[in-house]
Amino acid sequence: MPELRKDPVVGRWVIIAAERAQRPSDFLRASSPRVESFCPFCPGNESATPREVLAHRQGGVGNGPGWTLRVVPNSYPALRIEGSLVREGEGLFDRMSGIGAHEVIIESPRHDRTLADFSDQELAELLGAWRERIVDLRRDSRFRTISIFKNHGEAAGATLSHPHSQLIALPIVPLRLREELEGCLRHYSDRERCIYCDIMRQERRDRVRVVYESEQALVLAPWASRSPFETWILPKTHASNFEDASPGDLLGTARALRAVLRKLDAALERPAFNFMLHTAPLQERGLPHYHWHIEILPSLTKAAGFEWGTGFHINPTPPEEAAEFLRRLDP
Amino acid sequence: MPELRKDPVVGRWVIIAAERAQRPSDFLRASSPRVESFCPFCPGNESATPREVLAHRQGGVGNGPGWTLRVVPNSYPALRIEGSLVREGEGLFDRMSGIGAHEVIIESPRHDRTLADFSDQELAELLGAWRERIVDLRRDSRFRTISIFKNHGEAAGATLSHPHSQLIALPIVPLRLREELEGCLRHYSDRERCIYCDIMRQERRDRVRVVYESEQALVLAPWASRSPFETWILPKTHASNFEDASPGDLLGTARALRAVLRKLDAALERPAFNFMLHTAPLQERGLPHYHWHIEILPSLTKAAGFEWGTGFHINPTPPEEAAEFLRRLDP
Repeated sequence: MPELRKDPVVGRWVIIAAERAQRPSDFLRASSPRVESFCPFCPGNESATPREVLAHRQGGVGNGPGWTLRVVPNSYPALRIEGSLVREGEGLFDRMSGIGAHEVIIESPRHDRTLADFSDQELAELLGAWRERIVDLRRDSRFRTISIFKNHGEAAGATLSHPHSQLIALPIVPLRLREELEGCLRHYSDRERCIYCDIMRQERRDRVRVVYESEQALVLAPWASRSPFETWILPKTHASNFEDASPGDLLGTARALRAVLRKLDAALERPAFNFMLHTAPLQERGLPHYHWHIEILPSLTKAAGFEWGTGFHINPTPPEEAAEFLRRLDP
Repeated sequence: MPELRKDPVVGRWVIIAAERAQRPSDFLRASSPRVESFCPFCPGNESATPREVLAHRQGGVGNGPGWTLRVVPNSYPALRIEGSLVREGEGLFDRMSGIGAHEVIIESPRHDRTLADFSDQELAELLGAWRERIVDLRRDSRFRTISIFKNHGEAAGATLSHPHSQLIALPIVPLRLREELEGCLRHYSDRERCIYCDIMRQERRDRVRVVYESEQALVLAPWASRSPFETWILPKTHASNFEDASPGDLLGTARALRAVLRKLDAALERPAFNFMLHTAPLQERGLPHYHWHIEILPSLTKAAGFEWGTGFHINPTPPEEAAEFLRRLDP
């Protein structure tokens, strides 16, 4: 059974997910590149995954071909949905049973498509599926937060190339989100305004870090970008929770996502990237101080390793230059 | 001129280090593996680096061969030592001129040696050199913290294979260190004890996460390990600042470092790794709540990319299993 453990100094939770005793030799084998002769996400191979929890289909029957999008539990879940949430201490240390959901959103039946090839409507359908899953999972009172993210390309940590994103429902608030919530609350307590709304106002005036703008969404190269060509997609309408966004805002976000992914592909020769949905905890809806958004980090530098070494990020590309370059591209 | 920028939400400082306008095409070229036909760190090539700021030598003259250890400014510094520290705001955003020191500690004249091959005495000499540099740099009142770290192997972000560690002196306290200091202070305020001293007491009683123990030092697989085989080296004598450790503690730490590096090499077939010295800010010496230590993270998983995607760490190897395995090895 996996478990969640909390670092007693900084309060960071980690998932310890050993399913079986692993010897270092197992570990070394597991880390070598996987040969992809069989794809469990391709149509016709539905029996290779756990049974679907959601599917959009034009025809066909459940757990068979005919779908355009399919959500299944992860075959190698980092957390388990079954069991009760046991919290316990061990002297200075805190742990919790590894209860959670770990799902895979198979974004297309076509193995070789990438999100940048999707139409606006297809991307809106994907965002809609994320929302459907959040709305379903929030009925489970054990879950406090949901992370939705995508690792695209080997350099970004993807192990299967068929287009997919992942969802993890957690019984805790991860450190990064807690830091964001605390920072937002500090700003709101001082000024009674959402800091992301304030950032958007300032950036729309300055223009130098704006990558894309529509009626619904703003795409920025953030002021303190951690890596070259980091971009944030912010909905203009204030909402703390992604699942409460209007259909119009979802479509606007889908358009912005398509625009920025195509710009990044054109600028950086189809880079590997990570993106992550940042959204408020499930039971804290309608927060005036938090603003959901999507952060995209291309995997261009050895920044991650360096960051672990140094404890901070060194970014060789000023966001103003990245924004200017991306703004001009119209692929 | 590089600059430091602060994220307005979470307060993380990053270094924006562009020395010249970079186009994405420059960037792509720069990220391809470097061909190492010439090593600027090998004896005889001293003129290929900036002039040394410290050298241990048996013979020879300054900036020539004959050294056993040599410290030089980084040829591609992330920060600049010249100039005054200008702090300014830009609406919501904060920046500071990129003042700092960025040095390279060339650990051996021999190109193909690794730290695990060093003798205890040679490692103690290396730690002594770190201390000499800290004591010299802390006279500069612009600097608040010093990070010393090593990226070993390409997977850990190293770009040159000649054995070296790096030092960065910063005019700010990085977010990770600030979080540690705050967590330690919380514990101390509650109980009037150092949390790392408390962790050592508990771990010495439980034994299950102890990797190595001597009179001076304890090596642990930490409770909430972020990655497989993460290890921490803790001096048993409480001290917040590395530069204030006694010669005996330095020698004890050197022995512990050698033991754990040899164990990791034997367990994991000479893995890439990052290590980092965690030490209190320069002007805050003798803190009762903080405890200097070294954290070692082998680069085994795509954890870094995954962590960026998810915002938290998933570790497939429980620290108890890693500790048991490492404890038994005696290479």
